[in-house]
Amino acid sequence: MISKKASESYTVMHEMVLPNDTNTLNNLRGGTLLHWMDIAAAIAAQRHSNKIVVTASVDNVSFQNPVKLGDVVSIMAKVSRSFRSSMEVHLTVITENIPSGSKSKCNEAFYTFVALDHEGKPTEVPHLIPETGEEIQLFERALRRRQLRLILGGKLKPDDATELKALFQFPS
Amino acid sequence: MISKKASESYTVMHEMVLPNDTNTLNNLRGGTLLHWMDIAAAIAAQRHSNKIVVTASVDNVSFQNPVKLGDVVSIMAKVSRSFRSSMEVHLTVITENIPSGSKSKCNEAFYTFVALDHEGKPTEVPHLIPETGEEIQLFERALRRRQLRLILGGKLKPDDATELKALFQFPS
Amino acid sequence: MISKKASESYTVMHEMVLPNDTNTLNNLRGGTLLHWMDIAAAIAAQRHSNKIVVTASVDNVSFQNPVKLGDVVSIMAKVSRSFRSSMEVHLTVITENIPSGSKSKCNEAFYTFVALDHEGKPTEVPHLIPETGEEIQLFERALRRRQLRLILGGKLKPDDATELKALFQFPS
Amino acid sequence: MISKKASESYTVMHEMVLPNDTNTLNNLRGGTLLHWMDIAAAIAAQRHSNKIVVTASVDNVSFQNPVKLGDVVSIMAKVSRSFRSSMEVHLTVITENIPSGSKSKCNEAFYTFVALDHEGKPTEVPHLIPETGEEIQLFERALRRRQLRLILGGKLKPDDATELKALFQFPS
Amino acid sequence: MISKKASESYTVMHEMVLPNDTNTLNNLRGGTLLHWMDIAAAIAAQRHSNKIVVTASVDNVSFQNPVKLGDVVSIMAKVSRSFRSSMEVHLTVITENIPSGSKSKCNEAFYTFVALDHEGKPTEVPHLIPETGEEIQLFERALRRRQLRLILGGKLKPDDATELKALFQFPS
Amino acid sequence: MISKKASESYTVMHEMVLPNDTNTLNNLRGGTLLHWMDIAAAIAAQRHSNKIVVTASVDNVSFQNPVKLGDVVSIMAKVSRSFRSSMEVHLTVITENIPSGSKSKCNEAFYTFVALDHEGKPTEVPHLIPETGEEIQLFERALRRRQLRLILGGKLKPDDATELKALFQFPS
Repeated sequence: MISKKASESYTVMHEMVLPNDTNTLNNLRGGTLLHWMDIAAAIAAQRHSNKIVVTASVDNVSFQNPVKLGDVVSIMAKVSRSFRSSMEVHLTVITENIPSGSKSKCNEAFYTFVALDHEGKPTEVPHLIPETGEEIQLFERALRRRQLRLILGGKLKPDDATELKALFQFPS
Repeated sequence: MISKKASESYTVMHEMVLPNDTNTLNNLRGGTLLHWMDIAAAIAAQRHSNKIVVTASVDNVSFQNPVKLGDVVSIMAKVSRSFRSSMEVHLTVITENIPSGSKSKCNEAFYTFVALDHEGKPTEVPHLIPETGEEIQLFERALRRRQLRLILGGKLKPDDATELKALFQFPS
Repeated sequence: MISKKASESYTVMHEMVLPNDTNTLNNLRGGTLLHWMDIAAAIAAQRHSNKIVVTASVDNVSFQNPVKLGDVVSIMAKVSRSFRSSMEVHLTVITENIPSGSKSKCNEAFYTFVALDHEGKPTEVPHLIPETGEEIQLFERALRRRQLRLILGGKLKPDDATELKALFQFPS
Repeated sequence: MISKKASESYTVMHEMVLPNDTNTLNNLRGGTLLHWMDIAAAIAAQRHSNKIVVTASVDNVSFQNPVKLGDVVSIMAKVSRSFRSSMEVHLTVITENIPSGSKSKCNEAFYTFVALDHEGKPTEVPHLIPETGEEIQLFERALRRRQLRLILGGKLKPDDATELKALFQFPS
Repeated sequence: MISKKASESYTVMHEMVLPNDTNTLNNLRGGTLLHWMDIAAAIAAQRHSNKIVVTASVDNVSFQNPVKLGDVVSIMAKVSRSFRSSMEVHLTVITENIPSGSKSKCNEAFYTFVALDHEGKPTEVPHLIPETGEEIQLFERALRRRQLRLILGGKLKPDDATELKALFQFPS
Repeated sequence: MISKKASESYTVMHEMVLPNDTNTLNNLRGGTLLHWMDIAAAIAAQRHSNKIVVTASVDNVSFQNPVKLGDVVSIMAKVSRSFRSSMEVHLTVITENIPSGSKSKCNEAFYTFVALDHEGKPTEVPHLIPETGEEIQLFERALRRRQLRLILGGKLKPDDATELKALFQFPS
């Protein structure tokens, strides 16, 4: 199984907020953004695995600033860690109102994808090599996030979540 | 401030999986489902608050079974707890292949919405009265989920998350 | 051939009126509503027949109240009578402006579907058992509506429409 | 109030059946066609009235032949009669599979529109002048169809429907 | 190989400008119009060739007048010349604001399509017979436009473009 | 009037080809790609001008390789030259089939946009500073393309197109 650099999966997607993407306050609806993020993250996971991928889970996403009609949304996605057949993708969303020059961070999230072979069964993916400081930190903390997903999905007992306990500053 | 029953916000939404909702394996894309869930949850939050609402956050969502082209997706949404100006909505997603009669749970999730007044500012919402056993359990555990959201959003120190610590079976 | 209760086909669908669903007066376009009603009715017909279904006809639909941008449209669909391979579905459409609390009936309609087997040929469907008073009335008057459809489609002479003549209060 | 010829409202619309317009048998869904017909009919009604128009009702529509993915749908719309502020539009739908050269009539329908002024209130529309034999026949039978709509909408007693009774060959 | 008249491919398409088709000035976006023109031109090319067709190129398109929300766009397409397996389609776009009665030409363009057989390979198409004066002129100048396309695509040296040079009034 | 570097307008957009974007051969339709290119180019022009922009024209676009369902389309856009109130944007489109690792250039094009002020009138835009060798070449040849657009739009006599004549290697 080969290894690939985090940067090889880097994907940028731009969307312009059109009328049908907004609620009655002329703000981007959360569901539309979640949809765009899913496509951007799927492309990054495809780039890392060279396989068909399906969304396995989405971690907590919080929407910090309203995004207005006409704004440009930039979604940056990069694989943060790979496991046997799954990949965690880190997303950062920036929103710009270009005529006024304002730009702000909208949110940050993690989506997890599973790579599938031609029969639709999970298949192995390359190891990920983090290089920059930020990539290394995202890589290391991925275990903790994975334990949290397993606990929330009822597949791990909190007591066995060695990495996650560190978040609560107790010795395991 | 008046109070409202959980059941008053109950919303059911059905969607049929059409070609454009699928990936190249003919399965529903995760992003499309997240989008539909956002609309169903927003209707439930509107019913509780009688206000315009915006998505504030989405908790962990995991996709358990692939949903096929032509399947019917049923999304059930109900407010699980209200806070000052925000409401947590509990969602259950069932998928049915009607010709074959098969039916399975696809996922379960929590979306949080903020109610806004006509100037777009957060405004108070009614208290929620849980009635059934399931409603009461969802109501009680909402504090723990809220602490987890605040920690993940960097707005609460893990050490102060009294309710969440219980999840790890440590005395606070 | 088994029989099924009317209530087993009951389907509720909610949609929120978004900008692209409206005309230049910010009212829901009739065509969009007809489209949503078709999907809700098809799900109900699928539930009764457990088959793939295709729209065979739509009866008179009249739009009583304008539906505004941001309103929630609720479509309730239930099979009202089944024939050899076709099913008549009764639809009621309610529209709500949730922030103002107003709610009104938008329209009522009948869609007819044909059940198809895997080669695309019409196939038998279960008998329908109406239970409530409303279900029984819809069931009984279905013959009259069917005769009207056949006359309007040129497949029945008005003189042979025994049931329909009753509408004009003449003895047959 | 001026008068206008039927032919002045004549509108032709072509659509190609794309994947998202189809059901799982690769046939055009009825709801999509009803939607396209609404847009074509609205353009014809606008051309007659030079006003904003809203759909008031749709008469019986029956779908005669399945329309396949990739087919071209041609919708011909022309105002068949105008009343004080409403217009009945006659639609004919033809479907073509161009590579094979096959062409067949898909259906025929009547949509009714109300013309609105800038405050959204019904406003008068020009009289219609039918010219060809077909236009004259559609014009004359429009009264009968209008009575049927009023009876079905509960706004006219069957006994008062003078024109419609002729359909059943009884003297009024 | 048979021949067909230009008029046999004549296709008219109407679209109403809806909110999602517009930019923040409430004008039709250029990209949406290019998309509609592609569908209208593809239908015309299909009518001439009775084959599946794919877009090969689009010539210069300039947008002369802004098209507003609610306007009706009429696209007229007709094959202007056929080559071995390709067809040039001439498009004229008219925009109408029906309530105000204003009507103006929006643009004129040429799209080129290639006809494909069932294996996706280019296949011969009928010769085109131009009849009216306008059709004859479009037919004759098609060689010049084809040379320009070949030069711009790097497939022809400017010096060999005999027909095109005439545009610059130099002897070849 | 300030000046801005070409690279400041650089915009990358990724789209995944979904079923509704394809024709009956499962290839991306040309019109959909023209639509995506318009959005990417508009974002680049907005970044250069910090104004609302509208599409003024599209130069010759030729589609070189079929793009398949499931492929990822990458659109790179950068302003190549600015004039008083208009900007020419250069686009390169790459298509990737990620599971197979194949990647090919799909096309290259120029879109022109006009910057508008808040009343919808053309307004001045910054000068463009090309830096790399490719940016300088695109900048220099922009005059020639502009003359071609003016000739094709009937606004310039071929004889006055000094720059363009060079393409035909004749002294002016």
